[in-house]
Amino acid sequence: MAPVKVGLLGLGTVGSGTATVLKRNAEEIARRAGREIVIDYVATSKSELPQGLGLSNSRITTDPFDVLNDPDIEIVVELYGGDEPAKRLVLQALANGKHVVTANKALIAVHGNEIFAQAQEMGVLVAFESAVAGGIPIIKALREGLSANKINWLAGIINGTGNFILTEMRDKGRDFADVLKEAQQLGYAEADPTFDVEGVDAGHKLAILSSIAFGIPLQFDKTYLEGISKIAKEDVDYASELGYNIKHLGIARRTEQGIEQRVHPTLIPKKRLIANVDGVMNAILVQGDAVGPTLHYGAGAGGEPTASAVVADLVDITRALTSDPGNRVPHLAFQADALSDTPILPMESIQTSNYLRLTASDQPGVLATITQILGDGNISIEAFIQKQSATKTGEKASETATIILLTKVVNEGEMNLAIAEIEALEVVTSGITRIRVESLS
Amino acid sequence: MAPVKVGLLGLGTVGSGTATVLKRNAEEIARRAGREIVIDYVATSKSELPQGLGLSNSRITTDPFDVLNDPDIEIVVELYGGDEPAKRLVLQALANGKHVVTANKALIAVHGNEIFAQAQEMGVLVAFESAVAGGIPIIKALREGLSANKINWLAGIINGTGNFILTEMRDKGRDFADVLKEAQQLGYAEADPTFDVEGVDAGHKLAILSSIAFGIPLQFDKTYLEGISKIAKEDVDYASELGYNIKHLGIARRTEQGIEQRVHPTLIPKKRLIANVDGVMNAILVQGDAVGPTLHYGAGAGGEPTASAVVADLVDITRALTSDPGNRVPHLAFQADALSDTPILPMESIQTSNYLRLTASDQPGVLATITQILGDGNISIEAFIQKQSATKTGEKASETATIILLTKVVNEGEMNLAIAEIEALEVVTSGITRIRVESLS
Repeated sequence: MAPVKVGLLGLGTVGSGTATVLKRNAEEIARRAGREIVIDYVATSKSELPQGLGLSNSRITTDPFDVLNDPDIEIVVELYGGDEPAKRLVLQALANGKHVVTANKALIAVHGNEIFAQAQEMGVLVAFESAVAGGIPIIKALREGLSANKINWLAGIINGTGNFILTEMRDKGRDFADVLKEAQQLGYAEADPTFDVEGVDAGHKLAILSSIAFGIPLQFDKTYLEGISKIAKEDVDYASELGYNIKHLGIARRTEQGIEQRVHPTLIPKKRLIANVDGVMNAILVQGDAVGPTLHYGAGAGGEPTASAVVADLVDITRALTSDPGNRVPHLAFQADALSDTPILPMESIQTSNYLRLTASDQPGVLATITQILGDGNISIEAFIQKQSATKTGEKASETATIILLTKVVNEGEMNLAIAEIEALEVVTSGITRIRVESLS
Repeated sequence: MAPVKVGLLGLGTVGSGTATVLKRNAEEIARRAGREIVIDYVATSKSELPQGLGLSNSRITTDPFDVLNDPDIEIVVELYGGDEPAKRLVLQALANGKHVVTANKALIAVHGNEIFAQAQEMGVLVAFESAVAGGIPIIKALREGLSANKINWLAGIINGTGNFILTEMRDKGRDFADVLKEAQQLGYAEADPTFDVEGVDAGHKLAILSSIAFGIPLQFDKTYLEGISKIAKEDVDYASELGYNIKHLGIARRTEQGIEQRVHPTLIPKKRLIANVDGVMNAILVQGDAVGPTLHYGAGAGGEPTASAVVADLVDITRALTSDPGNRVPHLAFQADALSDTPILPMESIQTSNYLRLTASDQPGVLATITQILGDGNISIEAFIQKQSATKTGEKASETATIILLTKVVNEGEMNLAIAEIEALEVVTSGITRIRVESLS
């Protein structure tokens, strides 16, 4: 059969990786797909195509619409990232009857419903395996491999930069700011690290996973986002003392009331496999009602790992070209007319255990006051650590104590009230650092 | 659309699990597949269909050919297991134009080439996700999710019974025989445990994974099989002292000379995630050239976990019913006419480090003699432990020493020669326990 002709929008890290993998493994890929897959047309701001990427027979343009409007191109790979012009280009590609592959998590999480509706109307496919957890085939696992299951919950380390920072803090006793600077130098984190460390990037990915797991429309705007910038070195140490590692998790959980969809730092028991996923690696733990827990681990970013998913999508589409559109794997796992209106729950209604760290004047009755407040809120204490510490500033060195509390499972709203009440106490000399705890069992 | 009608051969643990999952998650499954999937006909030796499995509208027969010959049945699920009559039934189902789903690893590993050729000829599908690692969608991951990659190697804990035994030996200091008895009582191991503990079951699964990873025909007969029955409690302890866990691995590796395909106990550095996969759980670590390492973890056996994969296959086939046969996902990942003749290598030509344990008379020169033999074979020593131990039997308590050696990477054939030479020494009072070491990095 004739080769499948692909148009590539963007030739950065992932674009170059995609060209490299398609070239290096051309023979294996053709043996799998039954057809060659070639990059026929590239839109890039570069003035000529670099050597060594197998693009010597490819056409080049600075105008992406040249690619979208070319009748030879069957599949468009969008690797610009971000909102515009990506959105306009993808919609135009679909309108032109092209299949689309994209690694753009922000685009899918925020505009996916509109994009999929357009694809549905045109009878073409949008594939986005590379948008979540890089090279880990987690979308395929959820959408196809676990299709027998009612998914109860999933929890993922889906931002490599954040995981690198937390791993360094734990293993080398380093500060957040210090490791962040290194991550930026290593190219893991952007100059503006907000998307990574404040949970936006993880939130995009979580919204996609949640939608696929539960058969609901994409709802990034209802995702609770909390970053890791407030985690101190000592939190990592106290967590360890209590038997936990701190990970920045995206969690999506089905409850009777609706869907929890939240990104926040989380204490996880050290004995869980996912608590030991370190450095820039990603992993997603999925709990299905038939299969039980499954863990999916691998590289969540980088040129070739992400290209691995881009090319897998190209192979999938190549294989699906002859199938009736109504029988293809649905974009969000469930048929487009079968998505449910199960609500995403407000954060106040979720339930977790909590790790609390605060500093208080070391005087009689302080602990009693705090535990009274917790008791009034029906919040039970699971574990407790108190450390004396002399304040280093001020007129004279007055004694303070660091108090670490681990609560039993409690309603988020009630915990918030108790935290506010404790923080208002005169004897409490710091804000409360609060990190949620998940047993993931 | 009208429901897809399934015929079920066998109503044991997995058959009942399949019926249960299809019933419990009927709505979600239909929302995903776009059609209902119903078990219309069941072949079982039972005189009537049990309550509670959602089979009240299903027909029943004791003759499986009734199911195969029924024109309403589109997909046959074979869950008899073993060789015959499974093979005859599957071939007949294909000849009758039915798609087949099977959990039968022995059948696929030994007769897969013949079965797939028949399916190819008839333009129908054989799906067998449940045949390897139960509910983990590893076949889908290798065949589709990682299709961009040249797979370099994979290593799997793919027999839950064996992993349960090794985990108990390590965590509770128990003996192999003792744990095996418990595993049998718990129903993990068969009354005849040979398939599990001697590596036959893992070998079946490995042959399937290897074929899919490397694009070669199924060659179970060329798989090296070594069980765990010779692992002593003390080996587990010494391994731990050296920084390793012992796991029963199936390993398939691409080399320039050909494919390694081997099942044997293996020392793995404790810091590897897969070294911490415990109890009856399974995991497969896959190294692809683009994606790097990915790990796929979950339940490898049990009624519902296995049913999770059976039903996923049913959904896949339902979705593929309208696609042109030539464009469907190929049975062995690569197009049938594109399998390669890369040879499976004989065990003698592989290379690993080795853990060796032996007992010798505690007299001068013994260690020198042993290290001389190793040196003559160009075998370097990585680590060394010696423990004194008084023999408990015999006329008078003569002193013996237990010697544990960790070699550097060495050719299997040369290691075999050195082991034979050392075992022949008069001062060596035991056979040598030899366990291969893999760094899996």
